[in-house]
Amino acid sequence: MEDESGSLPPKSDFSAWYNDVLWRAEIMDVRYPVKGLYVWFPFGFGLRRHTYTILRGLLDGSGHDETLFPLLIPKTEFMKEAEHIKGFEEEVYWVTHGGLTELDVPLALRPTSETAMYPMFALWVRSHADLPIKIYQIVNTFRYETKHTRPLIRLREITSFKEAHTAHATWDEAAAQVETALSLYTQFYDDLCIPVIISRRPDWDKFPGADYTMAVDALMPDGRTLQVGTAHHLGTHFSKTFNITYEDATGEQQFVSQTCYGISERCIAAAIGVHGDDRGLVLPPKVAPVQVVIIPIIMKKQAEEVRAAAEALKAELEATGLRVKVDDRELRPGAKYYHWEMRGVPLRIEVGPRDLAAGTVVAATRDGEKMTLLRAGLAGEIPSVLAAFAGRLREQAEASLTSRIVQAESVDAAVEATKTGIAVVNWCGDEACAEAIEKETNASVLGTEVRNAHIGKSEGACIVCGRPGTSTVIARTY
Amino acid sequence: MEDESGSLPPKSDFSAWYNDVLWRAEIMDVRYPVKGLYVWFPFGFGLRRHTYTILRGLLDGSGHDETLFPLLIPKTEFMKEAEHIKGFEEEVYWVTHGGLTELDVPLALRPTSETAMYPMFALWVRSHADLPIKIYQIVNTFRYETKHTRPLIRLREITSFKEAHTAHATWDEAAAQVETALSLYTQFYDDLCIPVIISRRPDWDKFPGADYTMAVDALMPDGRTLQVGTAHHLGTHFSKTFNITYEDATGEQQFVSQTCYGISERCIAAAIGVHGDDRGLVLPPKVAPVQVVIIPIIMKKQAEEVRAAAEALKAELEATGLRVKVDDRELRPGAKYYHWEMRGVPLRIEVGPRDLAAGTVVAATRDGEKMTLLRAGLAGEIPSVLAAFAGRLREQAEASLTSRIVQAESVDAAVEATKTGIAVVNWCGDEACAEAIEKETNASVLGTEVRNAHIGKSEGACIVCGRPGTSTVIARTY
Repeated sequence: MEDESGSLPPKSDFSAWYNDVLWRAEIMDVRYPVKGLYVWFPFGFGLRRHTYTILRGLLDGSGHDETLFPLLIPKTEFMKEAEHIKGFEEEVYWVTHGGLTELDVPLALRPTSETAMYPMFALWVRSHADLPIKIYQIVNTFRYETKHTRPLIRLREITSFKEAHTAHATWDEAAAQVETALSLYTQFYDDLCIPVIISRRPDWDKFPGADYTMAVDALMPDGRTLQVGTAHHLGTHFSKTFNITYEDATGEQQFVSQTCYGISERCIAAAIGVHGDDRGLVLPPKVAPVQVVIIPIIMKKQAEEVRAAAEALKAELEATGLRVKVDDRELRPGAKYYHWEMRGVPLRIEVGPRDLAAGTVVAATRDGEKMTLLRAGLAGEIPSVLAAFAGRLREQAEASLTSRIVQAESVDAAVEATKTGIAVVNWCGDEACAEAIEKETNASVLGTEVRNAHIGKSEGACIVCGRPGTSTVIARTY
Repeated sequence: MEDESGSLPPKSDFSAWYNDVLWRAEIMDVRYPVKGLYVWFPFGFGLRRHTYTILRGLLDGSGHDETLFPLLIPKTEFMKEAEHIKGFEEEVYWVTHGGLTELDVPLALRPTSETAMYPMFALWVRSHADLPIKIYQIVNTFRYETKHTRPLIRLREITSFKEAHTAHATWDEAAAQVETALSLYTQFYDDLCIPVIISRRPDWDKFPGADYTMAVDALMPDGRTLQVGTAHHLGTHFSKTFNITYEDATGEQQFVSQTCYGISERCIAAAIGVHGDDRGLVLPPKVAPVQVVIIPIIMKKQAEEVRAAAEALKAELEATGLRVKVDDRELRPGAKYYHWEMRGVPLRIEVGPRDLAAGTVVAATRDGEKMTLLRAGLAGEIPSVLAAFAGRLREQAEASLTSRIVQAESVDAAVEATKTGIAVVNWCGDEACAEAIEKETNASVLGTEVRNAHIGKSEGACIVCGRPGTSTVIARTY
């Protein structure tokens, strides 16, 4: 499947770089014959597997149970919650025929699973003892996107939607669950070495049927933010629609309070976009399909010994749980370096005749740090080499984000700031002022109640009307 | 979600037992409001997770790469292979609308992925060096079933279809890959402690578009066989349709030979059906969501010490990789035994004040073997206790299968044999004779070239026409 003709555009031309690196690094094949649907190459699927293993671990470890609900939602259920319908009616795919027969009730391909899950919640919840419910599933969901589609970012089949849904006795418990979700997502993105900005979306941008929506955004190289996670407090909107009640201590029926929170394969787009460089992917060690590549440097003499030493090192590293490849193809070393740099492998180890004699290996991390390491005890050293590499990725990403966050004291300053990144402004909360800002900047109000170490919780005059306002983040978005 | 009212029907009433055990053991919720679609409960999903982890391991370890293709197949691609269409046109779901817009080209929900994957294979394969391709995916697939649906067995959404697809330079290499697939499937079912019968399906029952189909069947308690795996040699049917060619050593373009092989959640239905008993599930240790349940026997004195001992034992067992629960609910021990027996937990360990004093624990496997084990070194003993339990499951299942395989020398004998199990007959290969057998027995010809240690490869006169025939298995099927 490999084709290494031509060369990767520079990352400064981000859109071209992104499209190109996806096939050169064998993440996605975009040649599937339907707009907005793509094929995961095995290497890309490996990245997905390890990324979602982390996400599963975080959810399993915090009291969530994995489950699986049907893809198909009958129109009768789907149409029950009015705001929800309004939010989705233009982008739902409908199955109308089974074989040659027209279905009595059309079936929606889930765009998200509230209306599939909550009729079951109504059956599951009887008493306070059945609460909380905390479940999740990792599934394909569908949106009939009419905008420009883009692999991993804007899809008609979201292949890897992790959606969690919870039900609680009280509104406050649900609010606390939203905080738990945000904390899990922050940990998740920390494992991907990606700093994020969390904010509360303005009301007109919240999830259809939510009391409020918290969102997680990453900043991409072109200065646009990518929404890479959301957590919604659903209040009792859905529990009233689907009649999800429990009997409280006094014998009264109460509606449950609910939350849902999701992450899609955009998390992988963010990892690719934030860390990559002109030579290709740069993958965080925890999710790299290949964490260490060993290149045997084959000369005329000692060829067999070198090959055997490479295989022995591989076995030793694999025994510690690392994902390792030996590249023993008949290619010059430079071509192999190019190949594995494109695929973002965090650590390359070269083993040649001189290394055998000296009892050392030459190692190079994907960000260009070279070192000579003792062969004895090498397996024990690798975790700290990888952790240091991950630390540098995290620092670089953090520095890159911070340098592109600008406190803007006027609309004009916000216009400037959003050309390359994020403007932090004071905004009064009035929709008309937000519209004015959005119109001038061609950017969007991401949200208020911002959580990011580099964005202060300042209060001050709204940059449009001068009334009291609070810190609000503005950016061009994907 | 728990409701333990009423009692489980006896397993001799298999259909009632099966439907009942699925919700009592919290495998599937059948109350989803669309026929043929079901919800995986968390416990059931745990069983699925561990089952598919084994399958993934077998495939990853034998040179297969996991990948992921779109669910939606444009009608134009789907309609390319004539036999394939004929096989599926009555059971394909069609998406005709996106939002409020009618689609230009209707999209099929994959019933299987040949027509999604093979246009991409045509792009991927250029030369001999690109072969073989060996990929798989674990996905949801759809069949508009008009027959009676049944959880895990006959579904409209098959939620867990593992489909592997391979491409090879020669027909013989593809045939060898079919054998590899059968060997992997035999290993997989051995891990589930399920003996299987492999045979070559008669031509009228092969996969639409295959040269031949090998199938894997398990025998259910009601004497019907359940097809739990298939492996198809596709020859060049699809490579000719989708133009998948490579350049051979002489510079000629050659069509690749292909195979595909699949396993669905029927593997879980088989594990439930084959091993369960009147008290509920009996799960093979490798896939049980809970492998060991610890029941603290709480008396007035030493309650805290007992609880602490149970938790300490849990931690010790989990450190060895076991999946362990402590059931410290305020229920009498008998209710807890009932609860975990229903869920098939292989091993129960009781810890009470007397055990603390004696330095022992009382352990009981799900098949009723009781033993007193020393607390010191207990974690080291559990693997062999579980392996012995698995060995007994395997032996019982093997004995049960063998006792229901009958060599039938006449059609009348086959009628008798297929009332309770499998008839082995000699058949000449003529379709008219098969029809006669099927009509009299109300059963189906499973296949020829049978592979099972208990079914000899006899040759003899066809039980219908008396011409030379070979061993053929006949059974009522799901």
